[in-house]
Amino acid sequence: MNTESPIGVFDSGVGGLTVVKEIMRQLPGENMVYFGDTARVPYGSKSKNTVLKYSRQIVQFLQTKEIKAIVVACNTASALALDEIKREVAIPIIGVVEPGARMAAESTKTNSIGIIGTESTIKSGIYSKFLRNINPEITVVSRACPLFVPLVEEGLLEDRITDDVIERYLHEMKEYGIDALILGCTHYPLIRNAIKRYMGGEVHLVNPAYETAKSLKLLLAEQGLLNQSGNSAMYEYYVSDGVDKFSTFAAKVLPCHVEPAVVVDIESY
Amino acid sequence: MNTESPIGVFDSGVGGLTVVKEIMRQLPGENMVYFGDTARVPYGSKSKNTVLKYSRQIVQFLQTKEIKAIVVACNTASALALDEIKREVAIPIIGVVEPGARMAAESTKTNSIGIIGTESTIKSGIYSKFLRNINPEITVVSRACPLFVPLVEEGLLEDRITDDVIERYLHEMKEYGIDALILGCTHYPLIRNAIKRYMGGEVHLVNPAYETAKSLKLLLAEQGLLNQSGNSAMYEYYVSDGVDKFSTFAAKVLPCHVEPAVVVDIESY
Repeated sequence: MNTESPIGVFDSGVGGLTVVKEIMRQLPGENMVYFGDTARVPYGSKSKNTVLKYSRQIVQFLQTKEIKAIVVACNTASALALDEIKREVAIPIIGVVEPGARMAAESTKTNSIGIIGTESTIKSGIYSKFLRNINPEITVVSRACPLFVPLVEEGLLEDRITDDVIERYLHEMKEYGIDALILGCTHYPLIRNAIKRYMGGEVHLVNPAYETAKSLKLLLAEQGLLNQSGNSAMYEYYVSDGVDKFSTFAAKVLPCHVEPAVVVDIESY
Repeated sequence: MNTESPIGVFDSGVGGLTVVKEIMRQLPGENMVYFGDTARVPYGSKSKNTVLKYSRQIVQFLQTKEIKAIVVACNTASALALDEIKREVAIPIIGVVEPGARMAAESTKTNSIGIIGTESTIKSGIYSKFLRNINPEITVVSRACPLFVPLVEEGLLEDRITDDVIERYLHEMKEYGIDALILGCTHYPLIRNAIKRYMGGEVHLVNPAYETAKSLKLLLAEQGLLNQSGNSAMYEYYVSDGVDKFSTFAAKVLPCHVEPAVVVDIESY
């Protein structure tokens, strides 16, 4: 392992590519190995035990690729498994929750912050915990939005049905008068325009993917792990199922040509 | 193994309990062992290889319970894995697709039949294949409805959003003038009222769960496997994750007291 070793990034499926995209933009020299658990997606309705078990298998797999750091791109895995896994691996590892929470705490003026995410992320209460650690005066309004992921996957990004669901989920939050809203699931930035239209321009939408890439850059710099070789970056993609679907989604999200993904028997790790 | 041995029933999650309910009603003397793969749900967007692998693991597990027959309560697993598994097990095994197709073919007068289901079930073309085997003159209109399962799981059974989604998915089918519609996913019978309202009273909605219980009864009778002990039936429930969620759903669907489910490490089978 050295500074040219890749960064391992993983997610429950394809949504984590929004984090990969930000890393490509903010750290263009870094090599990456991505794993998407497309066979067992979604994680958002699963228990802590199961998400932890799946995350451990993925970390085992990524470590066969001689990675120098790990990014948990999935909000649910960051919420339910990061603490344990941090204790088990010797390389730096970051999730998306802490960077997202930090940014929201910086941007709020009213100290009222909204959080939306999967059922398991919201139930974990982890965003609230981080926010209150930063500033005990912050009021947190949280809401699980289980229909957002299937709506995004159906491609209904600009659609009356999606607008209706947004209103259903967010009207209480809007009435409460939050001024920052954490998009606590990798799929949600894909409907940020519709959410923005409903919540109004004065509510700052926080995209943890962006903040995570920023934190990763700082972390690598601190540890002397930035890749300064000047070689052009190499990317490898692995999934547990459905190579074609992965390619279709990746082509939409990523700004570069995407090599076909390789299927991994993740249960054997 | 004898006539008092239980019937093994499995599904990708909790939806298969609608099939269990029909078996309880039509075969009240039969013991049952249910397995719901709640850790890896849903199967509807997964590839054939993955669904086959998961189904084989479940069949392995069920066979440790000395079952006398297997019911594949999941439409996707019936569509993608039943053929292979049939060749691999020595006991009778049935899925939900063939009974559903047979009923639809019996009930149509116009020979125009609609099928709705998950992406993988529809893509497999298996309902069409069975229907055309029964009657080559039948016209089949099929449509994947990926939002129906999350809407049911959100509890939006009677809701304007669900009505909108139904219209979006089914308006072409309605214009086509089908007179029978197969509800090709275990969750769909839970929104049958809303579907009926939209499609109109003249369209016969076929619930494969009901037809499957009927076929099972015939099959057990043919093979001399009916339980005629007169003892009251015993039911056991196993899941791969989320015992509490299972209990909540089971309490809504099943007409009897439901013992707590036991978690199984299904990947080890």
